[in-house]
Amino acid sequence: MSFETTGTINSFGGKLLKLAHESKVTNTQMKLNLYLPPQASSSKPVPVLFYLAGLTCTGDNGAEKGFFQHKASEKGIAVVYPDTSPRGLNIPGEDDSYDFGSAAGFYIDATKEPWTKGYNMYSYITKELPEALFSHFEELDGNRVSITGHSMGGHGALTLYLRNPGKYKSVSAFAPISNPSKCPWGEKAFGGYFGDDNKSKWAEHDATELISKFPNDTDILIDVGTGDNFYKQGQLLPENLEEAAKKAGKKVNVRYQDGYDHSYFFISTFSDDHVEHAAKYLLA
Amino acid sequence: MSFETTGTINSFGGKLLKLAHESKVTNTQMKLNLYLPPQASSSKPVPVLFYLAGLTCTGDNGAEKGFFQHKASEKGIAVVYPDTSPRGLNIPGEDDSYDFGSAAGFYIDATKEPWTKGYNMYSYITKELPEALFSHFEELDGNRVSITGHSMGGHGALTLYLRNPGKYKSVSAFAPISNPSKCPWGEKAFGGYFGDDNKSKWAEHDATELISKFPNDTDILIDVGTGDNFYKQGQLLPENLEEAAKKAGKKVNVRYQDGYDHSYFFISTFSDDHVEHAAKYLLA
Repeated sequence: MSFETTGTINSFGGKLLKLAHESKVTNTQMKLNLYLPPQASSSKPVPVLFYLAGLTCTGDNGAEKGFFQHKASEKGIAVVYPDTSPRGLNIPGEDDSYDFGSAAGFYIDATKEPWTKGYNMYSYITKELPEALFSHFEELDGNRVSITGHSMGGHGALTLYLRNPGKYKSVSAFAPISNPSKCPWGEKAFGGYFGDDNKSKWAEHDATELISKFPNDTDILIDVGTGDNFYKQGQLLPENLEEAAKKAGKKVNVRYQDGYDHSYFFISTFSDDHVEHAAKYLLA
Repeated sequence: MSFETTGTINSFGGKLLKLAHESKVTNTQMKLNLYLPPQASSSKPVPVLFYLAGLTCTGDNGAEKGFFQHKASEKGIAVVYPDTSPRGLNIPGEDDSYDFGSAAGFYIDATKEPWTKGYNMYSYITKELPEALFSHFEELDGNRVSITGHSMGGHGALTLYLRNPGKYKSVSAFAPISNPSKCPWGEKAFGGYFGDDNKSKWAEHDATELISKFPNDTDILIDVGTGDNFYKQGQLLPENLEEAAKKAGKKVNVRYQDGYDHSYFFISTFSDDHVEHAAKYLLA
């Protein structure tokens, strides 16, 4: 699968590539950004950090406002910023709400019509996109991959990590939807993509349900702002994940950051820490 | 003059205040962002860096994508992000082009009708806004102020510094319009705000003309990307400023950054350096 490079932008000594490619699993063209740090070369490939964005976002938000390139450049880590859903499938209702359909793929493979037509962000992020990237870009080391994300993308990062033991060297998240089966955003998404009667499927994509089944030790870093309105409204529920982790004897370090909100001002403040966390494992 | 605080956002350990106030010199409400670093207190006021944005921008672009807060937080420097023009004066033609009128105030006081009605960004940035800020916010030290800016805002930073010896402790610029009298953007702006027959006024707001008249030593830091299309098109002309500075025996350090463009990816890569440059003088 080949990529079209629609732009190359210098950033922190490296290159931010604006990419587009045809996806078979989403049945659409998918856009993304790839940051190659200055250390990247085909003779010495660099490890890779996936950043999964949240509701309403594209691959641009993190690249423009997340400040991940700052530390990734220093550490020699590539960053992949994918989009958050297929776009333009022309499914009735796909653009009706900010928290379902376009920009709200939830990093699952839909089982319910008509969303099965292309709402397969789980397969896209875990299989098709990395395979395409690692075969196309010799500067990337496909054996050293970590994952992080924000909000819906934090849910994505946690669940992709927990469903695929060993696939990712580490995981972290900013204000993740930590127990989607129990919050309005998750109920709407899982009900729509899986069906309300398919609760076993819900559990397969819920970090709080998954953590006890994970066979390995964990070292999960999570930041949540105490001024985050979505945290206050019970959309994120990091306490539920903490409790499940404690019961399961898994390490989940939730840092409650005083007064921070849900925005990229919050993410950019702590992105250095999350790249450092990934670097500890990617560069070990 | 009092400010309305429409938002308070945590960022890099400090607070980003979203402010609005009524301006007498622009005859409009003006919005801006003010970053207070964690060190700011009324008992120990912090120095202040003004960041002037470029064409099409507001005070939000630098605050969201410039990452000045990263180093400003470490150094204990406040950052002011003003808007780039009055908005909504209802002057015919004010919204017709991206490089004149709204978001294109050029940091001058217009002498030509109808722009005299409020296009007075020179007086706004040098007098009204700092006086209002320093009387309202006891956390700010009005005796330690530096200035920087991008493109049109780089022109603003350079000319405000050079026209007001001693007012600013230091100046730097990203891809500044360095010789506006000799480039299309400047000719259009100065012709429109001053008149084509008022060339002496043009010279009073042209860094390349001003530098030989500046009474003190200078230490001006400028970054320009060699991949910047506006540089290639002759809108920026940093070479003219370099040559004038050389003749006048003034220090202007223009760093031509290989392959960088005109965007905030360029600015964010070097904003740490520009805050460091200001800190050298503000914290001396």
